Amino acid sequence: MSQTQRQLRLGAIIQGASGNMSAWRHPDAVADASINIDYVLDLARKAEQAKIDFLFVADGLYITPQSIPHFLNRFEPITLLSALSLVTKQIGLVATLSTSYSEPFTVARQFASLDHLSGGRVGWNVVTSPLEGSAKNFSRASHPAHDERYRIASEYLEVVKGLWDSWEADAFVRDKASGQFFNPDKLHTLNHNGKYFSVQGPLNVGRSPQGRPVVFQAGASEAGKAFAAEAADAIYTRQETPELAREFREDVRRRLVARGRNADDIRVFQGISVIIGDTEADAERRYQQTAELVTLDQALAYLGRYFEHHDFSQYDADAPFPDIGDLGENSFRSTTDAIKRNARARGLTLRQTALEEATPRPTFLGTAQQVADGLAEWFLSGAADGFVVRGGTPTAFDDFVTQVIPLLQARGIYRQAYEGSTLRENLGLAEPENQFAGRRQQVA
Amino acid sequence: MSQTQRQLRLGAIIQGASGNMSAWRHPDAVADASINIDYVLDLARKAEQAKIDFLFVADGLYITPQSIPHFLNRFEPITLLSALSLVTKQIGLVATLSTSYSEPFTVARQFASLDHLSGGRVGWNVVTSPLEGSAKNFSRASHPAHDERYRIASEYLEVVKGLWDSWEADAFVRDKASGQFFNPDKLHTLNHNGKYFSVQGPLNVGRSPQGRPVVFQAGASEAGKAFAAEAADAIYTRQETPELAREFREDVRRRLVARGRNADDIRVFQGISVIIGDTEADAERRYQQTAELVTLDQALAYLGRYFEHHDFSQYDADAPFPDIGDLGENSFRSTTDAIKRNARARGLTLRQTALEEATPRPTFLGTAQQVADGLAEWFLSGAADGFVVRGGTPTAFDDFVTQVIPLLQARGIYRQAYEGSTLRENLGLAEPENQFAGRRQQVA
Repeated sequence: MSQTQRQLRLGAIIQGASGNMSAWRHPDAVADASINIDYVLDLARKAEQAKIDFLFVADGLYITPQSIPHFLNRFEPITLLSALSLVTKQIGLVATLSTSYSEPFTVARQFASLDHLSGGRVGWNVVTSPLEGSAKNFSRASHPAHDERYRIASEYLEVVKGLWDSWEADAFVRDKASGQFFNPDKLHTLNHNGKYFSVQGPLNVGRSPQGRPVVFQAGASEAGKAFAAEAADAIYTRQETPELAREFREDVRRRLVARGRNADDIRVFQGISVIIGDTEADAERRYQQTAELVTLDQALAYLGRYFEHHDFSQYDADAPFPDIGDLGENSFRSTTDAIKRNARARGLTLRQTALEEATPRPTFLGTAQQVADGLAEWFLSGAADGFVVRGGTPTAFDDFVTQVIPLLQARGIYRQAYEGSTLRENLGLAEPENQFAGRRQQVA
Repeated sequence: MSQTQRQLRLGAIIQGASGNMSAWRHPDAVADASINIDYVLDLARKAEQAKIDFLFVADGLYITPQSIPHFLNRFEPITLLSALSLVTKQIGLVATLSTSYSEPFTVARQFASLDHLSGGRVGWNVVTSPLEGSAKNFSRASHPAHDERYRIASEYLEVVKGLWDSWEADAFVRDKASGQFFNPDKLHTLNHNGKYFSVQGPLNVGRSPQGRPVVFQAGASEAGKAFAAEAADAIYTRQETPELAREFREDVRRRLVARGRNADDIRVFQGISVIIGDTEADAERRYQQTAELVTLDQALAYLGRYFEHHDFSQYDADAPFPDIGDLGENSFRSTTDAIKRNARARGLTLRQTALEEATPRPTFLGTAQQVADGLAEWFLSGAADGFVVRGGTPTAFDDFVTQVIPLLQARGIYRQAYEGSTLRENLGLAEPENQFAGRRQQVA
């Protein structure tokens, strides 16, 4: 337990009542958690007290009446995290936002503004919108194909980082006596003209207190990993076993090196769920209690969401998982591939597949000691730099904070106090240099 | 002073150090006010303590090195007001956002989310982006022409209001026992297919606590007034005299009636600036002290901003205001018309025009009693339903709150306590009905 022991990092997911899609029905659940700010505030405060690195908010741009209940009526991530920026002091704030249906100037601005409001605690989880239906809410004839979405995202990030570098950190001198407000040598107008975007700049927000907001990437496809290696500071992924997770992390680190980055320039987070009990049997009972809240109809609708809202109720639930061709290839590709592979390999029926997906067993289930040991094992064996934690029942996150984190701290792999004041500092990521620093520009 | 005395309403502008473009140089100024959250928090708390109806944040989507200093580096409105939503309790939060460079689904969502976060205290000041340069930051070949911008805005508002009506107020039943999360009869999918937008819906945020966010409109052109009569709950305008203001307000009220609305369905706010002194001479001295901070070069650059960043330094400053043709017609049309009309009518030189524009005399200047009397006169004679107040010096807003508001209260035309908990309630505006209520829909 030396002082230089590599430290585990943790994020906390904010998403509805916590648990499966029917967790809102649980006797301990806050049924309107997804739109209840008191619930979110309570979670945020507990997470900050436990020295968790960041809060993490997922997002989606398309719902149907069959969507998961907590997706139907929820806070929009930028507004939610902005609201939390002044009532929290140290915890990071990571918002999911899609590059497929937004404008880089607006998104660069909102994240930069939020970064100033929070004193440099912001992260952006870049996604490309898996749901094809999203196009229908944004006046588009069609949803861009998977690989094109990543080509758009790649140029988008280039633009956003360029806008974030519009002003050097010391550009604003504000000298009352001379009347000089800024130093024109430290202003850099982007003048980007690319395939998908033309953005002149400069951004009307000064440089972020942490250089630039932290860029997360979520998506485990080939295109997603390539994009992460090019542009991300952190990855959010979900791998089923420590072996797969280790393989994934090593693959990503190799890709960074191949692009001339340092392997340690990225943090790989495994998205996990946890259920903690007084005994292993108690934890199992808690899992079953939450799983039983999901009906077969609900599970089939949940499964359908990954496959472009395909209607699985048309098939015999007790026959083998049906052949549905390429459906889902352009949406959640890595997830749909895994579901099909798993069903085939284990010869599962549609019912079994749907219930497994809708009521997944938590990644870690057991006593606090067992969960802490499991996390430490994944972490120390190189399967992850950290975990983004979701409670597997409505009260599991509380149990994690009060019972598991102290064990990780006692083991010397988790902080007792925040190391820094920005998210970058706490994640141990270097502050990026301004790509234009020192370059004099013709001022229009 | 009867209990039914019509009540004056007040908004407070958040915009940099307060005063003219060089006010940041004032000895009493917070030079980085536009990006200093402590400064904004202090202002917000004082405004809430004084029972001011709402905070009002302007916006812009394009800067050049010649822009006004506090436009170069400022908070983005949605993030700023979201941050204030949990540290204020009763004051309204009105954000400016353009319909020319954004997506109705995203904007409807962010305002709806912010409305939930704040408990129904949000307003949207709809603008169409006067600055032609905005197109350059949003991958557009050109800035839409003035009248087209309003046609876009009109359809945009129809879409946003339709999305805000996606769910009826009692749609979410969340019955743990039966498992019913929402009542499908109270969900309304928009399916909008128009000239500029195709938006399916529904919105993934439930109905606003005040029905819908309050819609402000700013812009005094014909197209602007027509748009306000059609779609707005409130108007932000700036008229130079009480006579012009009365004419403007009556015109707007007539237009509402012509469209089948009630004349009292709208609140007309005059944007004003104030300087308060111990004596009139003291107030005048404070004005001069701030005005002298602006140089001729800065004033010419300021003037140029209204005319598509036209370079006025090329002309003889002491010759009559130059003939610049139609420049500015597609940007701040009503402002540029007024500047040209005024210069011609009074035979002003370019220098005089520029300095008058860059260091405008406050609408109300004098002792607290004189300012209170002036406001009461405008209000009682029908020139305005209320005022959106900007300090004419860095400390003038504080003086307004501590000295003028108590006089308005003593006169019985301003509240001692907030009447309601939502912005609509405080502005005396009825909660809009859901346009789809009662209509059963085919659920996909």
